[in-house]
Amino acid sequence: MPPPIENWAERVCSGDVLAISRAITAIENHQPEAEELLRVVFPKTGKAYLTGITGAPGTGKSTLVDRLAAFYRRQEEAVGVIAVDPTSPYTGGAILGDRIRMQGHAGDAGMFIRSMATRGFLGGLARATAEVALLLDAAGKDQVLIETVGVGQDEVDIVRLADCVVVVMVPGMGDDIQNMKAGLMEIGDIFVLNKSDREGADRVEQEIRGLQSLSPHPSGPSSQTVLKGHDFSRAESNAQSPGALAPEGSIDWTPPVIRTIATTGEGLPALAAAINEMEAWLRSEKRLEARRTQHWKRRLDAMLRTELMRRARSNGFDASVLQFHAARIASGHQDPWQLVAQLTTQLFQGEKPA
Amino acid sequence: MPPPIENWAERVCSGDVLAISRAITAIENHQPEAEELLRVVFPKTGKAYLTGITGAPGTGKSTLVDRLAAFYRRQEEAVGVIAVDPTSPYTGGAILGDRIRMQGHAGDAGMFIRSMATRGFLGGLARATAEVALLLDAAGKDQVLIETVGVGQDEVDIVRLADCVVVVMVPGMGDDIQNMKAGLMEIGDIFVLNKSDREGADRVEQEIRGLQSLSPHPSGPSSQTVLKGHDFSRAESNAQSPGALAPEGSIDWTPPVIRTIATTGEGLPALAAAINEMEAWLRSEKRLEARRTQHWKRRLDAMLRTELMRRARSNGFDASVLQFHAARIASGHQDPWQLVAQLTTQLFQGEKPA
Repeated sequence: MPPPIENWAERVCSGDVLAISRAITAIENHQPEAEELLRVVFPKTGKAYLTGITGAPGTGKSTLVDRLAAFYRRQEEAVGVIAVDPTSPYTGGAILGDRIRMQGHAGDAGMFIRSMATRGFLGGLARATAEVALLLDAAGKDQVLIETVGVGQDEVDIVRLADCVVVVMVPGMGDDIQNMKAGLMEIGDIFVLNKSDREGADRVEQEIRGLQSLSPHPSGPSSQTVLKGHDFSRAESNAQSPGALAPEGSIDWTPPVIRTIATTGEGLPALAAAINEMEAWLRSEKRLEARRTQHWKRRLDAMLRTELMRRARSNGFDASVLQFHAARIASGHQDPWQLVAQLTTQLFQGEKPA
Repeated sequence: MPPPIENWAERVCSGDVLAISRAITAIENHQPEAEELLRVVFPKTGKAYLTGITGAPGTGKSTLVDRLAAFYRRQEEAVGVIAVDPTSPYTGGAILGDRIRMQGHAGDAGMFIRSMATRGFLGGLARATAEVALLLDAAGKDQVLIETVGVGQDEVDIVRLADCVVVVMVPGMGDDIQNMKAGLMEIGDIFVLNKSDREGADRVEQEIRGLQSLSPHPSGPSSQTVLKGHDFSRAESNAQSPGALAPEGSIDWTPPVIRTIATTGEGLPALAAAINEMEAWLRSEKRLEARRTQHWKRRLDAMLRTELMRRARSNGFDASVLQFHAARIASGHQDPWQLVAQLTTQLFQGEKPA
């Protein structure tokens, strides 16, 4: 039985680990109490700084996140870590050594680590992650780190809810992996070249710079002008991106490339400094507010979508009705577009049938 | 100016390449004519067999698809290829040699190849791919091959619309890549071990077999019994999967592992035979109908979601309204959950406010 909401919320806001863990489980399981709880703690949110850390598998994101968390703890900042990465040691893809290293934080009340199940969510993972981030924010964490493996739209959606996006790369990745980078170039505020003692670091940095010149950061004034041809979709997404809201004539943010060796901690202070600098940039001229507004715009859209479907289902459009119509479509007896138009009209009462 | 719908539809159904290309562009751009056209050609669909081919980058999927298409052409089957793979040669990530090889099909009226833009779709890619597959079906293609890079939920969504899912792996992939395989194990009807002349082929095949024993094919009778603990979500997805509809006591489909060397064509006849065998299995005891019904159930759900949002937007919940509310939420002046409940109630007229 869940604890009474007000009491539960109070415990979450005081940083009670058990209360937070229970709340995350409620969020993951879509329990109605989760929403009630979030509504109660919502006024306490907005203080934490959210950093998303993403990159291809094998780039050492988890170790980097671990080191960065430890760095913030030494500065006596409360840290929350959300790992949404099927290859992360937190989520079970790890060798024993990783697990042991992570246990170094056990017993530290200023550190909360939680892995999110990446299975069975069917698209709701970005929402659940956003809600957990709000929860950790309300729980008084100063820094919330969200780790995701950057290989799909889902992961991009997750990391885009962060205030600052760190994209991790390593030297010597194959061409196929490099191809994946393009999508990440657009969302990266800071690039990390991890395992930078490996051969090929200079070349990867040059490649990043080269891609940057083709795909400028949304804050750049020239983002529209250099886009052409098939880059239309990118121009469109830039137009909706937070940076596009930056006042004209403001100083642009040029995503820096930071070299690190996460396993030894080399470059970690430089990374923390870059994150800090980005935060200062965002906090000036209300850029952070503009960015968070854009994030809420996307989230509102997703929430509305979900709620409309929930009501549609409770208004008779449930699984068995879907099954009935699906069978008729599969056998060629029903036009799916006509059906959807009819059903939607029925749901929106007061509107005339199409 | 688009051609009149009826005339356009007629040309699509006769296999006119220009008419098909125009229709795909209309689908990609969400033009209203696309839906009109699809409604007209819909009665001509249901004849093509859809094979989805997926795998991590670098597994040689494109070459395999190319060879398979050529194989079908030699059997005088009309073939349509849809490449939804950012690393595919069709979509521009290729070396010149790949492009030249693909041009080997130029001038063959029985072969239609189209790459889908993987950018700027924001979740609608699965829908667009499904619609293009319907179109190629109506255009008289016997075999429709859908190539996707299997690394995210989006790609899984795309490939799941196929009648048969082929998962491609190669020997010697790193552990990180292997971790990604788990999600693909569940949806694979046929496994291909490509580049099988490389060292480690036996080990990968053993790994596939091992994973299969942990995660049985949905058609297997024991799928529920071996699942436990955190595998709940998998059990749930199995319950909704097409195989779960197979009549009790029917012969199960055990996903075969086919070894190929796509570059030389070795193993291609065996792969085509396996796809053929799977089709025969699906066509017996109405399994194909059951599977397609499940696919339409998912698609109806997605279509309804999109249509509800479209109507919500046209009923006043547009981008500027979203922007207004998002700014209030970002500054802590509005509870997003309450807002969504209110707005949804307004949209569903006739319902009392919550």
